[in-house]
Amino acid sequence: MNAPPDYGRAFARWRDSAPEAWAAYTRHPFVRALGDGSLPRSAFLHYLKQDYVFLVHYSRAWALAVAKSGSLKEMKIAAATVNALVNHEMRLHVEVCAAEGITEAQLFEVREAPQNLAYTRFVLDSGYSGGFLDLMAALAPCAMGYGEIGLVLASETSSDAYRPWIDTYAGQEYQDLCAEIGALIDAALEQRLGPHFPDVPAWNALCRTFRSAAELEAGFWDMGLAGA
Amino acid sequence: MNAPPDYGRAFARWRDSAPEAWAAYTRHPFVRALGDGSLPRSAFLHYLKQDYVFLVHYSRAWALAVAKSGSLKEMKIAAATVNALVNHEMRLHVEVCAAEGITEAQLFEVREAPQNLAYTRFVLDSGYSGGFLDLMAALAPCAMGYGEIGLVLASETSSDAYRPWIDTYAGQEYQDLCAEIGALIDAALEQRLGPHFPDVPAWNALCRTFRSAAELEAGFWDMGLAGA
Amino acid sequence: MNAPPDYGRAFARWRDSAPEAWAAYTRHPFVRALGDGSLPRSAFLHYLKQDYVFLVHYSRAWALAVAKSGSLKEMKIAAATVNALVNHEMRLHVEVCAAEGITEAQLFEVREAPQNLAYTRFVLDSGYSGGFLDLMAALAPCAMGYGEIGLVLASETSSDAYRPWIDTYAGQEYQDLCAEIGALIDAALEQRLGPHFPDVPAWNALCRTFRSAAELEAGFWDMGLAGA
Amino acid sequence: MNAPPDYGRAFARWRDSAPEAWAAYTRHPFVRALGDGSLPRSAFLHYLKQDYVFLVHYSRAWALAVAKSGSLKEMKIAAATVNALVNHEMRLHVEVCAAEGITEAQLFEVREAPQNLAYTRFVLDSGYSGGFLDLMAALAPCAMGYGEIGLVLASETSSDAYRPWIDTYAGQEYQDLCAEIGALIDAALEQRLGPHFPDVPAWNALCRTFRSAAELEAGFWDMGLAGA
Repeated sequence: MNAPPDYGRAFARWRDSAPEAWAAYTRHPFVRALGDGSLPRSAFLHYLKQDYVFLVHYSRAWALAVAKSGSLKEMKIAAATVNALVNHEMRLHVEVCAAEGITEAQLFEVREAPQNLAYTRFVLDSGYSGGFLDLMAALAPCAMGYGEIGLVLASETSSDAYRPWIDTYAGQEYQDLCAEIGALIDAALEQRLGPHFPDVPAWNALCRTFRSAAELEAGFWDMGLAGA
Repeated sequence: MNAPPDYGRAFARWRDSAPEAWAAYTRHPFVRALGDGSLPRSAFLHYLKQDYVFLVHYSRAWALAVAKSGSLKEMKIAAATVNALVNHEMRLHVEVCAAEGITEAQLFEVREAPQNLAYTRFVLDSGYSGGFLDLMAALAPCAMGYGEIGLVLASETSSDAYRPWIDTYAGQEYQDLCAEIGALIDAALEQRLGPHFPDVPAWNALCRTFRSAAELEAGFWDMGLAGA
Repeated sequence: MNAPPDYGRAFARWRDSAPEAWAAYTRHPFVRALGDGSLPRSAFLHYLKQDYVFLVHYSRAWALAVAKSGSLKEMKIAAATVNALVNHEMRLHVEVCAAEGITEAQLFEVREAPQNLAYTRFVLDSGYSGGFLDLMAALAPCAMGYGEIGLVLASETSSDAYRPWIDTYAGQEYQDLCAEIGALIDAALEQRLGPHFPDVPAWNALCRTFRSAAELEAGFWDMGLAGA
Repeated sequence: MNAPPDYGRAFARWRDSAPEAWAAYTRHPFVRALGDGSLPRSAFLHYLKQDYVFLVHYSRAWALAVAKSGSLKEMKIAAATVNALVNHEMRLHVEVCAAEGITEAQLFEVREAPQNLAYTRFVLDSGYSGGFLDLMAALAPCAMGYGEIGLVLASETSSDAYRPWIDTYAGQEYQDLCAEIGALIDAALEQRLGPHFPDVPAWNALCRTFRSAAELEAGFWDMGLAGA
């Protein structure tokens, strides 16, 4: 893939403002190994189990975004996202795990890895201690990074080992979600910081939050590999 | 109606712990006037418009409940409630208002009455400054009080003036929601305070929160009447 | 007094953006009656008791400002303010009440008036649901309005009936606090929204928050008069 | 030292409920090396710099405790703690660093290590998403663990290499603070969960929070060693 995906103005700039952190996350050895099929099954399963715990807290953070929304439109998108995550995605996740032989009971007993905890609590605190935009900057790397990773792997991958995972994130439904979240973020920025939002000082703090979240994503992949 | 509705253990005890506040809310002159049809249309429309603003903040508070949930089960119920409020109830409310000649543009311009603001910010702060149970105690009077009012009016009312409003809250769908929220609250109390939760000191603070929210509901009806 | 007090750029503009709400608050009949000595003692005592409850929640809101600060400097000022409020001002308040025959036991039993609750929960939710600037816009009218009222009454008043109250807020110590808070707010705005902060869209939301808080202050005076 | 220090009922039980995590934290190789003087200076300096960033967020969490307090007494202790941390301890820390050749400018430029971020955001989210007790359970391991470590090292240590650090935490002033925080926590538990608080289900969640925070403390020491 030559050009990065188009998920809006803010994403493009955030991505460009943290090239090393973004590459370390989206081109991580875990990701490459998903693509060429060399990822040990044990690492994938370890990742899947931790990702289930991650989804719980990531959903909580999107719920916080509803509480912190500045307009009904923002509330609607965030509320639909929470509902999709909690009442659909998590069920899907349980099914994927079941297909891999991980029971729901096992998922409930998963002990949260430190890298997992670090990431989700950072996102939540960004929201609680900051405002709506801070929360969006912390939520964006996960949502959109997976979209980009999905597209890259779909265009590069020869192996079918992790094809269903790749197809999920490269698929139109997930790509549409990324575009929708990107539009939500762009509109939120324009309504609060104006059309030239990257020139407003608050933008720099948002870039730092985005970068930190991208770095924490790379730590999450590290954890996945360490579980092999 | 002789017996109060059965929305669970906590509701029955909270209700009994604040008999005056509960009666002042659920048997308020505004409510009686809805029932006998004597409520001036202008008061009803004023109420409807404020209720739209109320729903925005009440939805935010339920979203906060997702973020503060202690289990996936709590998250699922709260998330479904948020989604129902934001992506369905509010649309319904817009339609009801439209039928009364209030456009959506007018709804967006409604200035929040002080009694409205007092109530919703109290609920939100109960959640932010307290824990999940404090938030539930603040959310309960609205959800369940409307259920009880609906049932009482449905059994007593002769006038058809506000029949659709009454039918909504007396209807099975809304009654089921009250029962579900009651079960959520009972389970949350048992999991945190144990089977004898009314004997735990924290229970008294929850009763005070419930009573304050009921009093603020009565203030909301006052505001409705004052808008006549 | 001809010119309004100089508590910084943001205050001057917020004040000008809500002339009616600001006048209704700072030139309220309760305030005028404090100045000319016509305020019934019972109203003053009612106000004093409610103001004690107010201080509890107002202190909580300043503590939240510490948690939401963006720099160590912001933290230091906010933390010193919390400590001054909780560990000094409240003791002073207890002494003033004692001089008026209100015991500390009576203060603990005060039931929070609805106007009091509305105001403080609005401030707290502005902080929890918004960011640091939203919280500052909600905290400013109380801190700075009392400073302005003190100065106006000190320059106009003939009666000595409420002289100690007036002297407290017209005094240099309190005026310095207003200037310090004003400088904190100006710096926070410049660091987040830039030197031309009133041109950034987020500014309009801050003006609305400031106005709402000023209106809630007027409601607080109404409550004082109603207690006569 | 034979017996653990007496910082109250809750501490004794929390400590006993997580023996492995507590030992891994308080008897960590970093701690032993502080005691016998074998800790490389570079590791100590790395720790000091990260501890400065830690203090910023730890202070924010104590400020949140003020906002979430249930009584004036709780507010007073928490507010005094915030003020001590922000307006005194941090200055002291700057002085200690200066004596080691680390300028304040360098402290401001410290990049927060992932283990640091994980710990502090966990504490903050425990407070924001939970209630006052959850926040106390997350704050306790740092405050009281340092007290215990200070006492142990003071009684065992032969080396003078890190004597000033040890004396600070073994000293009466710090030990009094631990006892005061312990009393605050015991009273808060009794007022909310009753005299038999360890029998109330909510207690188990508090034990889990305490253990997680202790584990994150051990991670913080790991980070210190890794910086050697």
